[in-house]
Amino acid sequence: MKTSDVPPEPNAPPVEDGRKRVLALALRPIVDGGRYPVKRVLGDTLEVEADLVTDGHDVLAAVLLYRHVDDPAWTEIPLEPAGNDTWKASFVLSRLGRYRYTVLTWVDAFASWRRGLQRKFDAGADVSVELLEGALLIDAAVKRGAPLADVAKLLRSSKAVSIADRVAHALSPEVSAELAHVPDRSLATAYEKELEVIVEQPLAGFSAWYELFPRSTGPAGTHGTFADAEKRLDYVAELGFDIVYLPPIHPIGHAFRKGPDNAPDAQPGDPGSPWAIGAAEGGHTSVHPELGTLDDFDHFVAAARDRKLAVALDIAFQASPDHPWVKEHPTWFKSRPDGSIQYAENPPKKYQDVYPFDFESADWKALWAGLRDVFVFWAERGIRVFRVDNPHTKPLPFWEWCLREVQTRYPDAIFLSEAFTRPKLMYALAKSGFSQSYTYFTWRTTKPDLQKYLEEITQVAEFYRPNFWPTTPDIFPEHLVHGGRGAFVSRLVLAATLSSNYGIYGPSYELMEHVQRPGVEELAQNEKYQLRTWDLERPDSLRHVMARLNQIRRAHPALHGNRSLRFHPTDNELLIAYSKRSPDRSDVVLCIVNLDPHHTHRGWVELDLDELGLPHDEAYQVHDLLSDARFTWRGRRNFVELDPRVMSAHVFELRRFVRTENQFEYFL
Amino acid sequence: MKTSDVPPEPNAPPVEDGRKRVLALALRPIVDGGRYPVKRVLGDTLEVEADLVTDGHDVLAAVLLYRHVDDPAWTEIPLEPAGNDTWKASFVLSRLGRYRYTVLTWVDAFASWRRGLQRKFDAGADVSVELLEGALLIDAAVKRGAPLADVAKLLRSSKAVSIADRVAHALSPEVSAELAHVPDRSLATAYEKELEVIVEQPLAGFSAWYELFPRSTGPAGTHGTFADAEKRLDYVAELGFDIVYLPPIHPIGHAFRKGPDNAPDAQPGDPGSPWAIGAAEGGHTSVHPELGTLDDFDHFVAAARDRKLAVALDIAFQASPDHPWVKEHPTWFKSRPDGSIQYAENPPKKYQDVYPFDFESADWKALWAGLRDVFVFWAERGIRVFRVDNPHTKPLPFWEWCLREVQTRYPDAIFLSEAFTRPKLMYALAKSGFSQSYTYFTWRTTKPDLQKYLEEITQVAEFYRPNFWPTTPDIFPEHLVHGGRGAFVSRLVLAATLSSNYGIYGPSYELMEHVQRPGVEELAQNEKYQLRTWDLERPDSLRHVMARLNQIRRAHPALHGNRSLRFHPTDNELLIAYSKRSPDRSDVVLCIVNLDPHHTHRGWVELDLDELGLPHDEAYQVHDLLSDARFTWRGRRNFVELDPRVMSAHVFELRRFVRTENQFEYFL
Repeated sequence: MKTSDVPPEPNAPPVEDGRKRVLALALRPIVDGGRYPVKRVLGDTLEVEADLVTDGHDVLAAVLLYRHVDDPAWTEIPLEPAGNDTWKASFVLSRLGRYRYTVLTWVDAFASWRRGLQRKFDAGADVSVELLEGALLIDAAVKRGAPLADVAKLLRSSKAVSIADRVAHALSPEVSAELAHVPDRSLATAYEKELEVIVEQPLAGFSAWYELFPRSTGPAGTHGTFADAEKRLDYVAELGFDIVYLPPIHPIGHAFRKGPDNAPDAQPGDPGSPWAIGAAEGGHTSVHPELGTLDDFDHFVAAARDRKLAVALDIAFQASPDHPWVKEHPTWFKSRPDGSIQYAENPPKKYQDVYPFDFESADWKALWAGLRDVFVFWAERGIRVFRVDNPHTKPLPFWEWCLREVQTRYPDAIFLSEAFTRPKLMYALAKSGFSQSYTYFTWRTTKPDLQKYLEEITQVAEFYRPNFWPTTPDIFPEHLVHGGRGAFVSRLVLAATLSSNYGIYGPSYELMEHVQRPGVEELAQNEKYQLRTWDLERPDSLRHVMARLNQIRRAHPALHGNRSLRFHPTDNELLIAYSKRSPDRSDVVLCIVNLDPHHTHRGWVELDLDELGLPHDEAYQVHDLLSDARFTWRGRRNFVELDPRVMSAHVFELRRFVRTENQFEYFL
Repeated sequence: MKTSDVPPEPNAPPVEDGRKRVLALALRPIVDGGRYPVKRVLGDTLEVEADLVTDGHDVLAAVLLYRHVDDPAWTEIPLEPAGNDTWKASFVLSRLGRYRYTVLTWVDAFASWRRGLQRKFDAGADVSVELLEGALLIDAAVKRGAPLADVAKLLRSSKAVSIADRVAHALSPEVSAELAHVPDRSLATAYEKELEVIVEQPLAGFSAWYELFPRSTGPAGTHGTFADAEKRLDYVAELGFDIVYLPPIHPIGHAFRKGPDNAPDAQPGDPGSPWAIGAAEGGHTSVHPELGTLDDFDHFVAAARDRKLAVALDIAFQASPDHPWVKEHPTWFKSRPDGSIQYAENPPKKYQDVYPFDFESADWKALWAGLRDVFVFWAERGIRVFRVDNPHTKPLPFWEWCLREVQTRYPDAIFLSEAFTRPKLMYALAKSGFSQSYTYFTWRTTKPDLQKYLEEITQVAEFYRPNFWPTTPDIFPEHLVHGGRGAFVSRLVLAATLSSNYGIYGPSYELMEHVQRPGVEELAQNEKYQLRTWDLERPDSLRHVMARLNQIRRAHPALHGNRSLRFHPTDNELLIAYSKRSPDRSDVVLCIVNLDPHHTHRGWVELDLDELGLPHDEAYQVHDLLSDARFTWRGRRNFVELDPRVMSAHVFELRRFVRTENQFEYFL
């Protein structure tokens, strides 16, 4: 009979002690088998589940172990069985940064014995030997520190104490409680690895962004400054946004500078594109002289902070030919055989005003550190929100390293990934550490397309936090060109309620700017290339709708997350209905949006009453938070009508009637 | 600016070389993040997929690496893009045992350059610098062994050769082919781990089992022997089964022996339960003297082999109090404080005739080796199929080790897990190495229950291979008590066609034995406790239906697997319809079963024509392989009627009409 050793097996753990009989499997939440962390925000409760399986019918015990990475000590809490061999525990994430979690489980010999003793005793069996076995288990517990020596002695007192009395002692809650203090974990098994959750500041999960070009905030015909932009902050704060996001604020290159509407050659006085970063005055850690000084910038940031507005900077890792790094760090760029530096291109298109960094440079370590230090520089000036331009043209391993480096120093730093590219690359960027991500929402306009897309991104919610933008300086979609106010309102409501994170590129949005540059899916007279002056007081501005929506968002916990999103059928393809509820179900918001910007639509909405916590047989109230109208509804099917000339959407708060004393009241 | 080191991060791999820009993610198939192997059988093609993502738009290259664990060298084959950043490759599993596989991917600099050159040249751009860049790439390839020094020189010949000619050379297929021989993998990245596939003999994936008690094969009133059972082999072979499975064949204990119908005390002459293993004559490596000798057993196995029947043994790891190991290895059992040995119990039930092994014994290493050597003993006598009794009462880590140990020595050994327990424990046993598993099929009788259960187990098909048994010696379900022939036929057809592995406990099944022991879900006069004599020639026997079904199964590749199973709607809740097709879609089988054993049912079946490869607008033929009837059907909805007094099921082969010359023919 052969008994030779088998070859080592990489996937099965080595058998150290064959008496360890419990397996902890399928620990979750998990992303890619634990390769990437799951994401939560400060104050969230992390609900953890695992499957615990063992042979036979013994009673198991298990603890969830967790610790913040900065804390060497594990905290442990018991896992509780939740049916079908699933066990659950949860804990509050009270600190920014990364936590690790894993599971430890073992056979609870005393609890197993206790259950058997109870059953046998109840069945009238002779349990004298069982009592002696219990005494042995208690002896072992005494060695582990339980003050139960007397109980062990009593269980053995076969003459002095009756079996019934000994059983009563053995089964007493006091004895179990003492045993629980000294569990025997000598044969415990741990889940195969530690998983990680990254805890970010709440703004990572719930935020309203407002993008503006500071240079367009000055008096007409002048280059706006940080001081001008500061005057705009009250307006942004009144609109109810959380974040004011500035396109790049650095010196703008002169070489190959673009003119208005991307004209190939700028004329003297043309301000150039803020994304052509770097000139004699400096690069990624300098500010454009026409905007002001670093001190002016600091003053702007402080003024924003006073208004509870966070400032987001646009970090675009590319250089104009005039960027100081081109001379200081030539190895960070790619030299061509003719001695020129490789500019950006997407053959046959050429972007001679932009030098990409060469991430295959032999000097990559210095390049990585230099780019990280750009974030660190601005973080040291108080910036914690970064919108990252085109991250999908820089390597994923760089981002995984860089964002971690920044968050290790500034755990409240968050990052928005501006990647409009292939879905798996967008998801890989999110896995690599981006807190939020731009999405395809901008192009999803029909009910089936919206529902399908939302279902897709809900499936990746453990790591991908969508941020919905109806428009950006780079994208002005077709449906807004001719959609008029109805389209602007419906896209605004969809963005603000479908996604807990959303953003508006203003003031062009609230002023319904809608002329495309011919042949290009972006606005004409684009602020990317020229100064603009905006009439914020125009009577048709959407500012009041925006302000109301942001007020509703803040007041309603249901809108602070996306996991509860449910679509509800309607019998009109142009009416989309969906709900969200708060984790404790106390707040429920139901949105119904008319997707046709021009015509009134009406139809029947079919609600999932159980999901919404609504009664099947009583009336309830739907309160439109936009118009303040209140309707009494009953049952699953109810009628709605939306005229886009009035308002393209209902944003209903749902309220049950409750009977109090002799009258009806609404219960929130 | 802080540049201190960040703490090490366990989940992100360390950054060795930041210039490695491609990530290989989501390698599949995979079970539990790679913790357990996926399962296939010899000759299968393993289809592997991975998501490959990198920044930008460079052209990627990737290879799948695989090797048999006994082969130190990796084989590599290219991965091909299959859309949405998914890449695919496949290879044939031509050897039993375990293979490992992983993925290596890198940016293909030459292919990226080639694509850019083509686009720029097509757009009429000056590509003289690009040609010099290409020369550098070819220089590097020359260093790696490509015979292309002349091409590099030519690309630099700016005076002697026109740009168009140089471009034509650079883009020539010959140059690309040479480059493909010497890929530059200096910046390649591998998937984070190696995954494993276990390749078992084909019987693991497609098998028909026939269980019989050899002691019931003798003349009436006598204890059957291996020689008697040998005479039964022609019958089993004629029925078309692949495996003849014997309950334990070892000496049976005398202590606490059970009498007929599980009577607590056996009378003299009662044969006892074969699962009470071990007596003075020996234990798990001995045969019961009344069955014969080991030589007789070997003769039986050889006779079975002559008839292309594999013999399966029942391995039940438990001992009667008379088992030699009780004295030889007292540490393998649990001693109680009163000096007695712990017998099996499920409080308050006691099984004094069975001693379980103590897997928490300090002597566990010897116990594990001893149990493994039971398999090895029988494998050395030519047995390769093992049905394992109650594996869920032995530790999962033991099975993972033991089954691997046996298969390392005998790669064609396969194991059927007889666990009827909680679903996750059944799945964990399958993950731990069992080739096949008993299922809940025995109790799933309605259309929704069957569909739901099949959908559930199809989701775990990477590791769980169901084996459907309508009955076993331990289970005789209610629906067969009063269902009569209609029920026996429908359950037989369902088992044999829903699952590629199925088993029959005979001859009780074909003889439609259907009296339950009162209050117990098993047959009365159970062969577990007494000898039985069977009249195999009874005219109402189902033997011919069984033989026909097994013939159909063998002839139809569609029935050799489960992954293609699809249910098709019917408008009668008692008619269930489902199809399977062969991987190459050349063979399609459609089954329709009347679930009501007593009444004729009729209804419309709605077929997924595209799934079945059937025309929407032409007639096709359905050929009932059970009755040999042929019907011409057309379109999605067709009518069926099944009278259980005639036959409870259709097992249709589907055939398209094809027009040849001037006539119609059927095309198989």
